[in-house]
Amino acid sequence: MLGEEIRYTPIGVIHSEFTDTKNTPAQGVFAKDARGEVEMFPQYTAGLKDIDGFSHIVLIYHYHLSKGYSSNSMPFLEDKEHGIFSIRHFNRPNPIGMSIVRLEKVRGNILEISEVDIIDGTPLLDIKPFVPLFDNRSDARSGWLSNPHIDMARGESGKHRGE
Amino acid sequence: MLGEEIRYTPIGVIHSEFTDTKNTPAQGVFAKDARGEVEMFPQYTAGLKDIDGFSHIVLIYHYHLSKGYSSNSMPFLEDKEHGIFSIRHFNRPNPIGMSIVRLEKVRGNILEISEVDIIDGTPLLDIKPFVPLFDNRSDARSGWLSNPHIDMARGESGKHRGE
Repeated sequence: MLGEEIRYTPIGVIHSEFTDTKNTPAQGVFAKDARGEVEMFPQYTAGLKDIDGFSHIVLIYHYHLSKGYSSNSMPFLEDKEHGIFSIRHFNRPNPIGMSIVRLEKVRGNILEISEVDIIDGTPLLDIKPFVPLFDNRSDARSGWLSNPHIDMARGESGKHRGE
Repeated sequence: MLGEEIRYTPIGVIHSEFTDTKNTPAQGVFAKDARGEVEMFPQYTAGLKDIDGFSHIVLIYHYHLSKGYSSNSMPFLEDKEHGIFSIRHFNRPNPIGMSIVRLEKVRGNILEISEVDIIDGTPLLDIKPFVPLFDNRSDARSGWLSNPHIDMARGESGKHRGE
């Protein structure tokens, strides 16, 4: 079982104004004005029932522009390498992305979203409701992402991810 | 591209005291004492560099006990059906799980974790650092998961997920 391949099929596609990894925001929380749409493939529209009650949703998607990975890599916030599981670079062993976005409106199979840090054309794998009591960890410690890096990110909402 | 299958390979396996979906906690935040271990396959150990600086990590994994899905399903907190993307049931179109767990200790290729809501033997797909400034949304609205349900979950940390 464990060595076996796992196969998923996209349930939709994410549209955004970002067409290049270099101008895609690093984190949605710093890109309040970045808008986009989730287009669900029609057979999954029924699964959206009640999602409009949530202000935020978690998108799980495939980094289709990922090119292999190294065990250590450079995040855009630093000039120092870190282990790939200590950063969020898209060149990961399994190139799975996760973003918390704001849900603005539901129109049939379309979800209008904002606070988007996802490149246009990204294949969507799953959506989960964001539940503050389940998902917030206000006391968490941020490792190498200390305050100077955070301040840098906050000041440059369109800052490149680099490659 | 979009209709195509996406293939991933497990990078490790999650061990826990939970051997049955019926006694696995619904959310780690309500299972402070639930302990477990992430066993990384040796070729991925180098990618763990610097992860010990984070108090919490996000585990992305495959719900290997998932059995298909319905567009609407019943979460354990309610006797009413909701769209599958408004709940976190493991019978999802792509059975991908996401848990925020506390990182207690790193020993070589083993991560000791707590606040675990994952069944023993689950194949691991990815690890991301939890960064409070990126990942907390204190103002988020919880949809159907209103306070009575939350209180119920909080009061029963070993409450079953059901099936």
